[in-house]
Amino acid sequence: MTRYDIAIIGTGPAGLEAAVTATVRNKNIILFGSKDLSNKMQVVDHPIKNYLGLPEVTGKEMAAAFTKQLEILGIEITEKKITSVYSMGDYFSLQTSDNEFVEATSVILASGVVAGKPYPGEEAFLGRGVSYCATCDAPLYKGKTVSVIGGGANEEAEADFLGEVCEKVYYFPLYKEEPHFTHDNLIVIREKPQEIKGMMKVTSLVTDQNEYETACVFILREAQFPGQLVPGLETEGNAVKVDIMMRTNIKGLFAAGDIAGRPYQYIKAAGQGNTAALSAVEYIDEKRREQK
Amino acid sequence: MTRYDIAIIGTGPAGLEAAVTATVRNKNIILFGSKDLSNKMQVVDHPIKNYLGLPEVTGKEMAAAFTKQLEILGIEITEKKITSVYSMGDYFSLQTSDNEFVEATSVILASGVVAGKPYPGEEAFLGRGVSYCATCDAPLYKGKTVSVIGGGANEEAEADFLGEVCEKVYYFPLYKEEPHFTHDNLIVIREKPQEIKGMMKVTSLVTDQNEYETACVFILREAQFPGQLVPGLETEGNAVKVDIMMRTNIKGLFAAGDIAGRPYQYIKAAGQGNTAALSAVEYIDEKRREQK
Repeated sequence: MTRYDIAIIGTGPAGLEAAVTATVRNKNIILFGSKDLSNKMQVVDHPIKNYLGLPEVTGKEMAAAFTKQLEILGIEITEKKITSVYSMGDYFSLQTSDNEFVEATSVILASGVVAGKPYPGEEAFLGRGVSYCATCDAPLYKGKTVSVIGGGANEEAEADFLGEVCEKVYYFPLYKEEPHFTHDNLIVIREKPQEIKGMMKVTSLVTDQNEYETACVFILREAQFPGQLVPGLETEGNAVKVDIMMRTNIKGLFAAGDIAGRPYQYIKAAGQGNTAALSAVEYIDEKRREQK
Repeated sequence: MTRYDIAIIGTGPAGLEAAVTATVRNKNIILFGSKDLSNKMQVVDHPIKNYLGLPEVTGKEMAAAFTKQLEILGIEITEKKITSVYSMGDYFSLQTSDNEFVEATSVILASGVVAGKPYPGEEAFLGRGVSYCATCDAPLYKGKTVSVIGGGANEEAEADFLGEVCEKVYYFPLYKEEPHFTHDNLIVIREKPQEIKGMMKVTSLVTDQNEYETACVFILREAQFPGQLVPGLETEGNAVKVDIMMRTNIKGLFAAGDIAGRPYQYIKAAGQGNTAALSAVEYIDEKRREQK
C-alpha cells in the first residue's frame, strides 16, 4: 500500500494551499475533496474584495484561478469522503465512505466548519446504533429498520445502498431538494430529528413530531464534527484547537481554515494551509532523520 | 488631530491584506510603508509558485496585482517610518522619524522580520546615547560627534541632517552602495560595529578594527526589533508573541506576517493580516459599545 507523506482533507482554500505548498516542497500527497473545490465558494456571486492578489472576483472566478494552479502543479483531487482518521502511532489510517483505507505519515484537516452540534444521544450511542458510514456498517443491520439523517443530496447514494441491505430505511433530509432513490423501501420523512434514544443500543429516533423505532441512525453530514472524524482530537466548540503553527494535540496531525476556527475568510484559510503544510513537511523530515 | 481606527505598519502582504480587509469593513485606516510595497518582494524574479490564486508570478507581478487592489479600494500608502509606538491606554501614539505623532485606536504591526540582534550596549544605553531617530534626537547632540549605523540607503537623509546639527558624523553603512551626503562632515567608515560602550552615557562605538569616541550612536535599521518599536511588547527571539487571533500581549495591538514568526511566506502573511484586521475591528467595535 502506498503510504503518502501528507493526506489533505478538504478542497477549500486551506486544503488547496496546503496541497500547493506541499507539492512545491516535493512531498507525495493525496488531496481529498471535490473537483468543484468548495460548494461555499461556488455560490458566491457578489465580488469578493479582500483576497489579496485577486481583486473583485466572484467565487467561480476564484475557483477557476485555484484550479489553474492545481493543473500547473499537476495536483489531482481524489473525490472520496473521509469518515475517520485513526492515529496508528507512526502513521495515520484514513477510512473512506466506501470502506477503503489510505495511509499517510501526516494529515491536514481542512474540511471546513460544521454548523450546529451533535444530536442528544449521538455521542453516547456511537458504535452502538449511531454510524457515520453506511457502506461500512450496513451489514450489521441486514433485514432491520434503520434511519438516515441526510445532510445533502450527495448522501443519497449511501442511503440507497442501505435500502438494498435493510428492510426499511427512514430518510430525513436536512435540505430542500426532493431525494431520489432506486429502492422503494426508503421513506422520506420531512420532520426534524431531535434525539437518539436507547438503552444498551439505539432503539428509536425522536423528531419534532414523532418517534421512530430504529436499529441504527446513520448520520451523513456533508462534513463531520472534527472530534468525530479523529478520535482523541482536542476541540473547542466546533473548532479544532491549534497553535500558531497549525499543530493539533495529535503529533503529525494539523488543521487549517474554517475547521481551525474564526475568522471564516478565504485568505486566512489559505495562509493557514500554507503553515500547516510547512509544519507537516517539518514533521516528516524530522521523522526521517530519527529513523536513520 | 485625526484619530484613525487602525494604524498599519508595513506594506508587505500582511500589512496590505490588513488594509484591504479593514477598508472593506469601513474602518478609517492609515497605512505606513513604501509605495514599492516591499523590497523583499520586488527583488524576487524566479516565479513564486505557492501563492494560491496567483500561479507562477514574479515578485514584481505580485506587487502589481496588490497595487491594483489598493487602487480599486482607494487605499493610500503613507511613506513615513514609524520609530516608536506608545500605548496610551485608550489609544496609541505613533512617532514618525520626522518627529510627528499619529494617533490610532488600534495598531497592526506588519513590518517584517529584522535579522540579527541588538548590539551589546544598545539596550542598556537606549535614551542615554543610543537613539533610533535622528530627527527626534539631533538637537541633543548639537556641536558634538555622533555615529550612525545605517541599515540602508533610505537612512542617508537622516544621517545628512545630523551633519547639519552635529560637529562630526561617523557613518557606518551596513550595505554595499556608496552613500551620498550634502554635508562634508560625514565620514563613511567601512568597519563592522560591534559594541556600544559608556558609563552613565555612551562614550564610544567599538568596531572590528577601532574604537570611536562618540556622544551618541544612531541606529537606523530599515525595520526595528519589535520590542524596541513598542515598549512592553512580548517577543520570542525576533518574533512578536501572538495568539491564533494575532493578538499580542498589549490590548489593541496586533501583529501579522514575518514579524509574528515563521514560516516566512507571502500567503501566510496575507492570511494573518486578514485575521489581525478582523481582530482589530472587533476590538474597536467593543470599545465603542463600552463607551456608550
